[in-house]
Amino acid sequence: MKTPAQLQELISKRLNELNFQTNPATLYEPIRYMLSLGGKRMRPVLLLMSTELFDGDINDALSAAIGIEVFHNFTLLHDDIMDNAPLRRSQPTVHSKWNSNIAILSGDAMFVKSCQLMMSVPNAALRDVLDTFNETALEVCEGQQYDMDFEKKESVSIDQYLNMIRLKTAVLLGCSLKVGALIAKASKEDAQHIYDFGVNLGLAFQIQDDVLDVYANAEKFGKQVGGDILSNKKTYLLLTALQFSNVIIKEDLLKWINLPIMPDQYSAKVEAVTKIYNLLGVREQAEKKMNELYKDAFDHLNAIPISSDKKMQLQKLAESLLDREV
Amino acid sequence: MKTPAQLQELISKRLNELNFQTNPATLYEPIRYMLSLGGKRMRPVLLLMSTELFDGDINDALSAAIGIEVFHNFTLLHDDIMDNAPLRRSQPTVHSKWNSNIAILSGDAMFVKSCQLMMSVPNAALRDVLDTFNETALEVCEGQQYDMDFEKKESVSIDQYLNMIRLKTAVLLGCSLKVGALIAKASKEDAQHIYDFGVNLGLAFQIQDDVLDVYANAEKFGKQVGGDILSNKKTYLLLTALQFSNVIIKEDLLKWINLPIMPDQYSAKVEAVTKIYNLLGVREQAEKKMNELYKDAFDHLNAIPISSDKKMQLQKLAESLLDREV
Repeated sequence: MKTPAQLQELISKRLNELNFQTNPATLYEPIRYMLSLGGKRMRPVLLLMSTELFDGDINDALSAAIGIEVFHNFTLLHDDIMDNAPLRRSQPTVHSKWNSNIAILSGDAMFVKSCQLMMSVPNAALRDVLDTFNETALEVCEGQQYDMDFEKKESVSIDQYLNMIRLKTAVLLGCSLKVGALIAKASKEDAQHIYDFGVNLGLAFQIQDDVLDVYANAEKFGKQVGGDILSNKKTYLLLTALQFSNVIIKEDLLKWINLPIMPDQYSAKVEAVTKIYNLLGVREQAEKKMNELYKDAFDHLNAIPISSDKKMQLQKLAESLLDREV
Repeated sequence: MKTPAQLQELISKRLNELNFQTNPATLYEPIRYMLSLGGKRMRPVLLLMSTELFDGDINDALSAAIGIEVFHNFTLLHDDIMDNAPLRRSQPTVHSKWNSNIAILSGDAMFVKSCQLMMSVPNAALRDVLDTFNETALEVCEGQQYDMDFEKKESVSIDQYLNMIRLKTAVLLGCSLKVGALIAKASKEDAQHIYDFGVNLGLAFQIQDDVLDVYANAEKFGKQVGGDILSNKKTYLLLTALQFSNVIIKEDLLKWINLPIMPDQYSAKVEAVTKIYNLLGVREQAEKKMNELYKDAFDHLNAIPISSDKKMQLQKLAESLLDREV
């Protein structure tokens, strides 16, 4: 079985070999650019590991793995337009390097390309793979819409938040693993177990992201600590704090949220909100939820009747995903 | 064999029965709205007629026909954002009724929905249908990109223009007919003939659109005559005029194109440019090209070894398409 690093190399090579048309350049250059920005290629790695876990041939799965990565990058490209984001991996986003119209259309073309790449799976798996892929793609759209809706919504419950991150992020990890399993002719039950493993892992990962935003070691985290607090992002931490605070603390928290603040008050706001989080123990609650999800994930992995030796690579990868420095 | 009107009714009924999810409403309401704006449903009608032509069962084809219509409406939705169009079929466009972000994302979701609808074809046809559909979808993106590029381009050749309208419009007509044929298990050759029939018909139709913009009876045409002239749109007429004019006439034409004009000069501009077109006989050249394309279309239809009786509905529909009042 290949290590994640070996799989990443395979994926990187195949991504570089992707033979996009040349013209119109304004359609295909942004696609090449977007795919050149890098990333951990986590989704195709998971897909290939799943194929190997179920004794499939990764040559049958490599194009579909690339398809999932192209699809993921399409969603990032369109999300960047919607979020009006200037940078992606420290480089200009497509819509700021070119323009919104080019970003919309090259995103559309990337989506078609991802569908074409998914077609490379063996005939026996084609219908199941595409059904899984299409269903997931629609869910990812739903997740992004909920995310945008939540920005304008007064009150969001923790369950609504969990459903949003499940759709926006977690299902694509589950889908990657399930597609890898389907290509390897895994049973329906096992394909579902590996899907649920991925979804629960994705949820845990996303909650960890929320925790890291506040409690990470700034240098190692690589971005500003407290960014979510400053933008009033409805994270697992904030929603938990709002749900479990008494009237007085809640009022204090809402004051910081609703107060328009100047840059010289940024650190005061981050400090004050973090203090409230600490008072309420929301970090501990988030970590408790993460651990539950992590356990659920591994229950599903363990339910697959394959020797634990063979699951080692996937287990190590999952552990490393959630072993980010706080 | 069913008449176009009967097929339209079937399509309309099935479109109304489409069972979209309810939530998030901000994702699915724009989709329902877009599909409720109507239209001639030409593409699904062509698809079903092609299935009937090759003795297929239209029940096998109906969902795919709806899929093509949903895809077509997705492209219109995204095009409207890019063109900054306020109206579509006299109703507010999705991005002006909601906003651009919602229009981008509900467009993406429509595209996924169209892929899901294409999955309903019989297993034997699945791979060929999806390959045709994906290839066409990518070409439609290319066509829209060329169209946007041409707006900013100093000089566009007639061949470049023909290639653009082929990609942006004509291939989807060809694809509809080919998918209908593939579902009915037509031979590769026949599927290609019916595709080429559709592409050539689509090209002729598009050139006719350019002619109608200038030479239509305004009342019957239903939109302002000369709109393309006022917006300096690089139509078949304008490009032909630029290609075949001598230095003096070309200078006159370019003067009108480059001159910023006020509303009180609109009719003077339309009149002057039309006069140049008349002088150069560009209408006759456009009609000659249309007739060539029309003949090519019917050569392909005639090459299919099926009795002309069975081709009658398709032939009548094609004739009616190109029998719009001038």
